[in-house]
Amino acid sequence: MIKKINHIGIAVNSLGLSSEIFSKLFEQSNPHTETVAEQKATISFYPVGDSSLELIESTASDSSISKFIEKRGEGIHHICLEVDDIKSEIVRLKNHQFQFVNDVPTAGGDGYWVVFLHPKSTNGVLIELCEKIK
Amino acid sequence: MIKKINHIGIAVNSLGLSSEIFSKLFEQSNPHTETVAEQKATISFYPVGDSSLELIESTASDSSISKFIEKRGEGIHHICLEVDDIKSEIVRLKNHQFQFVNDVPTAGGDGYWVVFLHPKSTNGVLIELCEKIK
Repeated sequence: MIKKINHIGIAVNSLGLSSEIFSKLFEQSNPHTETVAEQKATISFYPVGDSSLELIESTASDSSISKFIEKRGEGIHHICLEVDDIKSEIVRLKNHQFQFVNDVPTAGGDGYWVVFLHPKSTNGVLIELCEKIK
Repeated sequence: MIKKINHIGIAVNSLGLSSEIFSKLFEQSNPHTETVAEQKATISFYPVGDSSLELIESTASDSSISKFIEKRGEGIHHICLEVDDIKSEIVRLKNHQFQFVNDVPTAGGDGYWVVFLHPKSTNGVLIELCEKIK
């Protein structure tokens, strides 16, 4: 079951510059920040309601974030939907012919298992599914 | 004050085709659908947690959605943040040098006053602010 929008990921060139903008927007300074080695990225979180916005800066020129920015510029990169059981959601969505970038959950940021659906099966929208690691 | 992510707007070519995809994704059929004349668009809503995803199909070739799809293809178009007082938020954000596409609230879909910040002041992200019409 899909529970909520866990976060919206925004690809940025510089966490330093973008944090100034989003800290003003959300009236929140010093956002929680961590590096996710698996995704070659450093991420800052801005809680909003029961979701959050994540600013994502690449840590490597061959990362998916670097490639995204090269092609489309800074902007909204993905939507993450939180589910109660990621493995059963993968099975359910595969039965509906949804395609996955990777269909084995990996450890994402902030203590979640994550997988990505391929945007070609979701109208050009990159959708991440996540489940809190127990 | 920014309360929550009210919705994420996704530009699509065909509500008919995209509704099939998102109805399977969210296990919701027959989404609420309405036409917003001001924005030259027809919109379908999928509630997710305390937010929603909105699929947006243009009703005119000169609409902002048509121009977006022409330039970038289907995909995530904007993020809408719900605020308690849209007029005071406009003043607050202008004081921080944020730029607006329009800075006078208009009636958007689903009973809200809305304004759009210009993406050049928000890292390429089109951000809508909304306040429930009382």
